Amino acid sequence: MKIAVLGTGMVGQALAARLAELGHDVTVGTRDVEVTLAKKDPDTMGNPPYATWAHAHPQVHLATYAEAAADAQLLVNATSGNVSLAALQAAGTENLAGKILIDIANPLDFSAGFPPSLFVKDTDSLGEQIQAAFPRLKVVKALNTLTAALMVNPRNLADGDHTVFVSGNDADAKKTVIGLLESFGHTDVIDLGDITTARGSEMLLPIWLRLMGVLNTPTFNIKVVR
Amino acid sequence: MKIAVLGTGMVGQALAARLAELGHDVTVGTRDVEVTLAKKDPDTMGNPPYATWAHAHPQVHLATYAEAAADAQLLVNATSGNVSLAALQAAGTENLAGKILIDIANPLDFSAGFPPSLFVKDTDSLGEQIQAAFPRLKVVKALNTLTAALMVNPRNLADGDHTVFVSGNDADAKKTVIGLLESFGHTDVIDLGDITTARGSEMLLPIWLRLMGVLNTPTFNIKVVR
Repeated sequence: MKIAVLGTGMVGQALAARLAELGHDVTVGTRDVEVTLAKKDPDTMGNPPYATWAHAHPQVHLATYAEAAADAQLLVNATSGNVSLAALQAAGTENLAGKILIDIANPLDFSAGFPPSLFVKDTDSLGEQIQAAFPRLKVVKALNTLTAALMVNPRNLADGDHTVFVSGNDADAKKTVIGLLESFGHTDVIDLGDITTARGSEMLLPIWLRLMGVLNTPTFNIKVVR
Repeated sequence: MKIAVLGTGMVGQALAARLAELGHDVTVGTRDVEVTLAKKDPDTMGNPPYATWAHAHPQVHLATYAEAAADAQLLVNATSGNVSLAALQAAGTENLAGKILIDIANPLDFSAGFPPSLFVKDTDSLGEQIQAAFPRLKVVKALNTLTAALMVNPRNLADGDHTVFVSGNDADAKKTVIGLLESFGHTDVIDLGDITTARGSEMLLPIWLRLMGVLNTPTFNIKVVR
């Protein structure tokens, strides 16, 4: 499948690499290609700059948000939650129309430090805001509840015996996304319902962030035991 | 231990019965003893009225919030979140001073129907509000993330292979509560940190409520796989 991964950070890189490894034709979208390639410093988490990563992944293309979106059949929103709507605006409403968007972003507000609060929650969600802003886009909230390495290689933890969620209004879009998640190795994907159920998965972040601190690792996930 | 369980509903009944079964001296606290005993109808979930339950549990006493709290070494807040502060005010600041409170309540707001939203969240929590209102009470948030039957008999699901959380400012109080949880059968209790971490466990409710709908049962819990 032709897939655009919007976002050049750790999450975008993990998704792009895994999708390419699985044989998809992947283009990473960014606001400004030259600026992205010119970055020389590791990010705040110590990950190498995009150009270094790109050198190791020559099969993945880099393009503007609009170019990446125009060519894609499916998109992944791997941008930070606070810039997701702007990134999708830059991608262009017409380039998004009728396409599936896997929305991985979380509405984290770091303005008061760590742990972040959520800039939208409870009676609304980032997933819903994206769906409302782009009515012809088929938004499927997924993978926002675990660390990037486990999003794409879930079997690296407990042989994949843990849970991920999908939320979205379009049943066929969710079916396609569930298929992709299963191709990553996910064995327990729960369909929570329409896009309003993204409120629930986004509101997992506060306990997720505290657990990361207590467990001293991001390499964990929740399993819904039933 | 002499324990006061504040709240006569399904959660209070489940806790009181289990604590009595384990040999504790349990008094259930209510706003008005006569009103509680006079109730003849099942609650909105179909549970029998308190008097019916009490008849089957003669070793559990019933008293006012203040009487129950005065005699107790440890208290359980099993009231609805929207009346918890009022119940504790009725119990009396002096009757609470220096004691441990296991706070099971969630700040659910049903005023706009189902699913409820949260009347406090993200930058504050019900656990923190209770701690702030009663500084000499040792509040430990716990058990608010699973259904009553599993709170007290966790081994009835997957032989107890799932997780509960504690949040609180007093290390000794958390130790006591963890001991009680283990006596119920819990095998994986994660100490999230101080009472501000109750934000995380209370914000699990939105996805919990959606999962109850999707799974068509409240008999599930999350396990932190690591």
